[in-house]
Amino acid sequence: MCPLLRHSSKVSTKAGLPPGTLMKVGEKRCEKTTISVIDYDSKSFEEQTVERVEDIFPYKDTAKVTWINVTGIDNIDVIEKIGSYFGLHPLVLEDILHTNQRPKMEDFGDFLYIVLKMLYFEETENDIMAEQISLILGKNYVISFQESEKDVFGHLRERIQKSKGRIRTMGSDYLAYNLMDAIVDNYYIMLERLGEYIDDIEKELIGDPDREILEEINYLRSEMIFLRKAVWPLREVIRNLERRDSLLIQEKTVIFLRDLYDHTIQIIDTVETYKEMLSGMIELYLSSVSNRMNEVMKTLTIIATIFIPLSFIAGVYGMNFEYMPELQWRWGYPAVLVVMVMILLLMVFYFKKKRWL
Amino acid sequence: MCPLLRHSSKVSTKAGLPPGTLMKVGEKRCEKTTISVIDYDSKSFEEQTVERVEDIFPYKDTAKVTWINVTGIDNIDVIEKIGSYFGLHPLVLEDILHTNQRPKMEDFGDFLYIVLKMLYFEETENDIMAEQISLILGKNYVISFQESEKDVFGHLRERIQKSKGRIRTMGSDYLAYNLMDAIVDNYYIMLERLGEYIDDIEKELIGDPDREILEEINYLRSEMIFLRKAVWPLREVIRNLERRDSLLIQEKTVIFLRDLYDHTIQIIDTVETYKEMLSGMIELYLSSVSNRMNEVMKTLTIIATIFIPLSFIAGVYGMNFEYMPELQWRWGYPAVLVVMVMILLLMVFYFKKKRWL
Amino acid sequence: MCPLLRHSSKVSTKAGLPPGTLMKVGEKRCEKTTISVIDYDSKSFEEQTVERVEDIFPYKDTAKVTWINVTGIDNIDVIEKIGSYFGLHPLVLEDILHTNQRPKMEDFGDFLYIVLKMLYFEETENDIMAEQISLILGKNYVISFQESEKDVFGHLRERIQKSKGRIRTMGSDYLAYNLMDAIVDNYYIMLERLGEYIDDIEKELIGDPDREILEEINYLRSEMIFLRKAVWPLREVIRNLERRDSLLIQEKTVIFLRDLYDHTIQIIDTVETYKEMLSGMIELYLSSVSNRMNEVMKTLTIIATIFIPLSFIAGVYGMNFEYMPELQWRWGYPAVLVVMVMILLLMVFYFKKKRWL
Amino acid sequence: MCPLLRHSSKVSTKAGLPPGTLMKVGEKRCEKTTISVIDYDSKSFEEQTVERVEDIFPYKDTAKVTWINVTGIDNIDVIEKIGSYFGLHPLVLEDILHTNQRPKMEDFGDFLYIVLKMLYFEETENDIMAEQISLILGKNYVISFQESEKDVFGHLRERIQKSKGRIRTMGSDYLAYNLMDAIVDNYYIMLERLGEYIDDIEKELIGDPDREILEEINYLRSEMIFLRKAVWPLREVIRNLERRDSLLIQEKTVIFLRDLYDHTIQIIDTVETYKEMLSGMIELYLSSVSNRMNEVMKTLTIIATIFIPLSFIAGVYGMNFEYMPELQWRWGYPAVLVVMVMILLLMVFYFKKKRWL
Amino acid sequence: MCPLLRHSSKVSTKAGLPPGTLMKVGEKRCEKTTISVIDYDSKSFEEQTVERVEDIFPYKDTAKVTWINVTGIDNIDVIEKIGSYFGLHPLVLEDILHTNQRPKMEDFGDFLYIVLKMLYFEETENDIMAEQISLILGKNYVISFQESEKDVFGHLRERIQKSKGRIRTMGSDYLAYNLMDAIVDNYYIMLERLGEYIDDIEKELIGDPDREILEEINYLRSEMIFLRKAVWPLREVIRNLERRDSLLIQEKTVIFLRDLYDHTIQIIDTVETYKEMLSGMIELYLSSVSNRMNEVMKTLTIIATIFIPLSFIAGVYGMNFEYMPELQWRWGYPAVLVVMVMILLLMVFYFKKKRWL
Repeated sequence: MCPLLRHSSKVSTKAGLPPGTLMKVGEKRCEKTTISVIDYDSKSFEEQTVERVEDIFPYKDTAKVTWINVTGIDNIDVIEKIGSYFGLHPLVLEDILHTNQRPKMEDFGDFLYIVLKMLYFEETENDIMAEQISLILGKNYVISFQESEKDVFGHLRERIQKSKGRIRTMGSDYLAYNLMDAIVDNYYIMLERLGEYIDDIEKELIGDPDREILEEINYLRSEMIFLRKAVWPLREVIRNLERRDSLLIQEKTVIFLRDLYDHTIQIIDTVETYKEMLSGMIELYLSSVSNRMNEVMKTLTIIATIFIPLSFIAGVYGMNFEYMPELQWRWGYPAVLVVMVMILLLMVFYFKKKRWL
Repeated sequence: MCPLLRHSSKVSTKAGLPPGTLMKVGEKRCEKTTISVIDYDSKSFEEQTVERVEDIFPYKDTAKVTWINVTGIDNIDVIEKIGSYFGLHPLVLEDILHTNQRPKMEDFGDFLYIVLKMLYFEETENDIMAEQISLILGKNYVISFQESEKDVFGHLRERIQKSKGRIRTMGSDYLAYNLMDAIVDNYYIMLERLGEYIDDIEKELIGDPDREILEEINYLRSEMIFLRKAVWPLREVIRNLERRDSLLIQEKTVIFLRDLYDHTIQIIDTVETYKEMLSGMIELYLSSVSNRMNEVMKTLTIIATIFIPLSFIAGVYGMNFEYMPELQWRWGYPAVLVVMVMILLLMVFYFKKKRWL
Repeated sequence: MCPLLRHSSKVSTKAGLPPGTLMKVGEKRCEKTTISVIDYDSKSFEEQTVERVEDIFPYKDTAKVTWINVTGIDNIDVIEKIGSYFGLHPLVLEDILHTNQRPKMEDFGDFLYIVLKMLYFEETENDIMAEQISLILGKNYVISFQESEKDVFGHLRERIQKSKGRIRTMGSDYLAYNLMDAIVDNYYIMLERLGEYIDDIEKELIGDPDREILEEINYLRSEMIFLRKAVWPLREVIRNLERRDSLLIQEKTVIFLRDLYDHTIQIIDTVETYKEMLSGMIELYLSSVSNRMNEVMKTLTIIATIFIPLSFIAGVYGMNFEYMPELQWRWGYPAVLVVMVMILLLMVFYFKKKRWL
Repeated sequence: MCPLLRHSSKVSTKAGLPPGTLMKVGEKRCEKTTISVIDYDSKSFEEQTVERVEDIFPYKDTAKVTWINVTGIDNIDVIEKIGSYFGLHPLVLEDILHTNQRPKMEDFGDFLYIVLKMLYFEETENDIMAEQISLILGKNYVISFQESEKDVFGHLRERIQKSKGRIRTMGSDYLAYNLMDAIVDNYYIMLERLGEYIDDIEKELIGDPDREILEEINYLRSEMIFLRKAVWPLREVIRNLERRDSLLIQEKTVIFLRDLYDHTIQIIDTVETYKEMLSGMIELYLSSVSNRMNEVMKTLTIIATIFIPLSFIAGVYGMNFEYMPELQWRWGYPAVLVVMVMILLLMVFYFKKKRWL
Repeated sequence: MCPLLRHSSKVSTKAGLPPGTLMKVGEKRCEKTTISVIDYDSKSFEEQTVERVEDIFPYKDTAKVTWINVTGIDNIDVIEKIGSYFGLHPLVLEDILHTNQRPKMEDFGDFLYIVLKMLYFEETENDIMAEQISLILGKNYVISFQESEKDVFGHLRERIQKSKGRIRTMGSDYLAYNLMDAIVDNYYIMLERLGEYIDDIEKELIGDPDREILEEINYLRSEMIFLRKAVWPLREVIRNLERRDSLLIQEKTVIFLRDLYDHTIQIIDTVETYKEMLSGMIELYLSSVSNRMNEVMKTLTIIATIFIPLSFIAGVYGMNFEYMPELQWRWGYPAVLVVMVMILLLMVFYFKKKRWL
């Protein structure tokens, strides 16, 4: 997992190599590559973690549905072996390793290759983390590749094991749908936490806006741009699956894909809404800065406008002319003080009328 | 009912459950679930509130048109029984309970599933409230699910009862159209009240803008974004119904759907217009803030520019040099006062010319 | 006629009534309903104002082209009689009365229903007024419904009477085209006057911008939004007529509709251009406000920056220390004055260099 | 020729006349109407200026390619004669005279009617001038109508005469292509000069921005809007020609039209880029205004912040209390001066640290 | 190579010449024209630099795949000879020389003409440099034309020579794909460096924003506009190749083109993201300018608001009235000082409360 918001990671080291060359692009995340296998049909269920990659090969041609989950993709050798046994195209293997793919679906006839993004909201750093999930959907197997050990498939595993829901009675396409559904369901959780964080920031913004808030809002807005990039293509992916151009998708799974399609639209809607809300918050920030400036200026103006004329009067009677009759008057000083207080009251009245006070 | 403008409500509790699991998502709104049935054809009319859900089952297969209205969807058991008797897909039941759906229409062959939003403008809080209405349109029945008791179908019930208009002579598709029409007609009322509220705010804005107004405008603008999300898909829903892909929609109902389609376009137009007007009001607010700042600055500048030079002159004659011939002059003091008045008049003339006064 | 820019007029009174219920929605404009009939072919011409609505019925089936013009739509009874005799759908009658329609064209097989907006620029109030025109194009008749007596069809009547142009030799579709053409030609006049008004405002803006100008520009921009709503759909209407899906449109009229289509595109272009120009004017206004602020601030800064240091010097020599040797110097006072003048010149030179003076 | 940027010219005088009425709309530009004829095939070439319009009629049916160039369209009589002899539709003649057309192409079966805009950058006034060119492409003739004598066809005439390039061996469609190519090539020149002018303005903007610059930028941006309106439809025109729906376009000309299509896309790209650059320049202007304001405010603040406290100190020792021990101190005055210098240095240091100096 | 960001280069010298006239448009970049030939099949490999252009002709019809690379296109004679021998259309040759083409693909039946842009980020000047690459893909040859000697094909040459990857076993279409892939791979490198530069600027922006930063950001944003113009059409080019309308593209190459298509979409995404980030940075800059202004104003206000009242008090006791009892008081002076300190503390407390200090 790594923060969603970053520039396209270093792929320059790969430029110039022939297409289809396998090389891990992206940060190293997982020391070890673990392969677990779940094999089931409506009656039987078997789960194991295999030691050697060759152990999964027998499952390819069983009549049961097999879910092979590969955690950690740094071990290129393993990926290559799976690729060659299951007949995956070198470009597919390259895309599995190159974890900067956009979500996409490619139909290779005897299998579908689906790329998705797993997204988490990291509350300690208030940042969205992303991880690439690749799915290979074959006739009676699904292979999933994930970068790190953290995943959202726990409930699904349990459901298959306990035979809850219809999953044990349906094919590999329904399993793939469930994997995608788990990922998309997790988007809701991520968006909910993000929404709470945005609410917190909005409260802070109304309370006491400072420049750090602005930078945070700006950062979140950039994140929305990246989030959109991760979610928009997903819509197209599921639309294409739903259209059933591939024989691997069965009629009775389509209605579930349609439901999933509705979910992705809701998620896109939410992302767009957050983006517009953040833009609105930036406007609010700017207007609050200019409001403060206004307040500062008003304070200055009130003070200066009251005291500058008064100081002038004091200055006049501070002049050293010999012939200034007022200076000798018995009540000159109190009279001046009275005039000053009257000017002050007049000014205060004027400011009250202008609603500056 | 709940305010329209809120983040996607908590669905995280549901993530991980198998698709089609029934669970109420959204706030609890209605303690009791009430089911009322209206059964009619051109000659007969029957209305009743049933006690047990099983009482509605006989109506399914009568030749008359039956409108089953379910108020309150917290009683999952009831929903499930209706679902299984009327052959509704688990995903449909899930969508009925999960009240964060976008408006949509789904064709299941023997019935159509339609989701709409009922919208009210709550004048006490100046807020738009939303409620989800689900319609099941079958061959000769319509089932409507609504979250709370408040509804907009009173006139329609009366019309069916009193046999006003053509409703008693037409089928269930025309009944469904009338339900949708009642909801869309209510949008006009909601938009009208909202429009009046926007007018009020605009008047206040021109009169005496303060920061709360800006926050209110900003809030309304966010609400427009949500409103758009609730209304845009409606257009597509009605367009799809009008195209008559489903055999459940009869030829003679199409012209009414076309009329309804025109109404939704008008509503979308109005929402878009409100949105643009609110954006214009934000610009107006910002420019009025900067106008005020201008006025404040002008006041300061006028006062300072007049009195600072005068104070300087007073300061000069306040110096204690021994050899300052002016100080001994008989008319020195009056001369200085005259000079000061002349400077003041000059300044005032200058500001008048610059139109600052 | 009523101002274009207003919120959707009160239709809430109508909500709940069965669809197709006739009721005038909109302001009352015309006390009396007048019906005039023009009946012509290449040889004969007949014009009359009928007393009773029944007098127009015979014209329905004559071989000649008949133009029935109904002015004033408040008399629902008349509209209903025409509707039932000419076989108009209740929803059409409803749309004729409900004068908040968007421009649209509906094909009912034996007649076309066309809604247009007549637009005037009211120079006394600098406001755009709108009126709804409904056209019913039948095999050999055209019925036009207009809200008030003011219209733009004078030239057309004259042309038919004097047999100028090809109008007397062509069918009812060409007559309908001519009515639409007269309305669209009038848009040019309206836009021209509006353009002159915008030019006036722009001149005022460059000369002496104040807040009222901004509000006027903002108002005009809102009006452009409404104008666009009235003109955009027109394009689609004429496009659909031109496509000749209806048998009522003859081949030789199509070229004229294509010409009309070009005109509507030009009008849309002009509206869009005005809108962009008004946005540019708002920017210009804002920048001119900030320019003025700049000027105000410069004045303050120049005055303060020159006199505050000078006042300080005067203040220093106003101190009452016993041992201040300068005060006893013979040329102390002149020397200080010279220093002050030098500082002043230096400041002026500095401001000149900075181009603040 | 007239400036591109102006409101739709007065067409109100024409409103109400029957469609197809010939009347010159636009300014008068050319007193005399000149007709020149070039008639050629691969072997022969003939060029002449005809006196009477009837002299061009014999060329209509020759096997050779004929280019009839009509300069000046104020002589409606001439246009009408050409129109009736060559069988042009009255609406075409109307469009030729009405010089506010958008670029368009219309297929009348035996001839194509093409409207283009000739654009010049007038360097004396830094303005774009526009002129309407109408082309009639018939089986073996091209008629071009231009408003004024200035044109861009000199090179083309020379090429035909000297038999350079393939032009003498190809048909009238290739001639029409060459006319369009000459016009589009001239757009490059116009854009280049415009680009140089924009560069000049940008330099001025960075050097010393004033309000006139802003108005100039704003004017140029409006011009870009109009320019876009003149160029965008051109793309569609050429696209339609390239599609060869008309038999008048031969297979071997298509590749040239495709090349021309690429050119128009490049021109649209450039116009869009200029528009975005001008928007960027407005932002730069606004930010430079606010930068200057900042500088002005800093100067004021520095001066005021330094001297106001110093003046206060001087004011304190200017007080006339009898018991102020400092005043009698021998070193009181120098001590106060030292304190003042220290405060000054402190302030300067503070401003340096804040980077205000 | 030349900077990407510049106005359309001088093509005015070319206007008026017949279409297809060969003339180098663009700066001179390469004195000499070098032609290198690589000829290979799965078994053999031959590489040479030819002296005379005629030496490459024999390779045209060999069964092996031939890659002819022409570096430097100033020698029009050479281009013309290649053109006539390989049967290239004059317009193609014109496009090769006219280096301001947008990326495009044209199908001439027996060969495809592809134009691409090679892009480099020049770190010394922080500028993007562009160079036009033209590819001619024939049945068993590829001709590439590049403007300067710097290229990105080194790895590819090596791969062909060392027979790495599948390249030696596939046809000329795969070779062309590899050339395009090398160019697109280089875009990643360019974008990565650009991204680092943008990061640097962002850091500087947060640290200490000045006007040069703004100009740099503005420049980069303009560059993004040009970059988009260079990359967007590429997508269409590769899409068209992938669709295999041309027989020159073999089935087994399509999957590689699909992969390349994904890469171009990623690149477009990145360019769009950079553009949005730069816009966000401009907003950040403007808000930071207004924040600074705020700070400046606060400083002024604090100083002025504290010392102006104090100065006024000092001014009052500097007046020369004869009857001012306070002046004779023994503790008058200390009392005034105490009052002044209290006012100062009050003010500081007030500013602290307002969070201005």
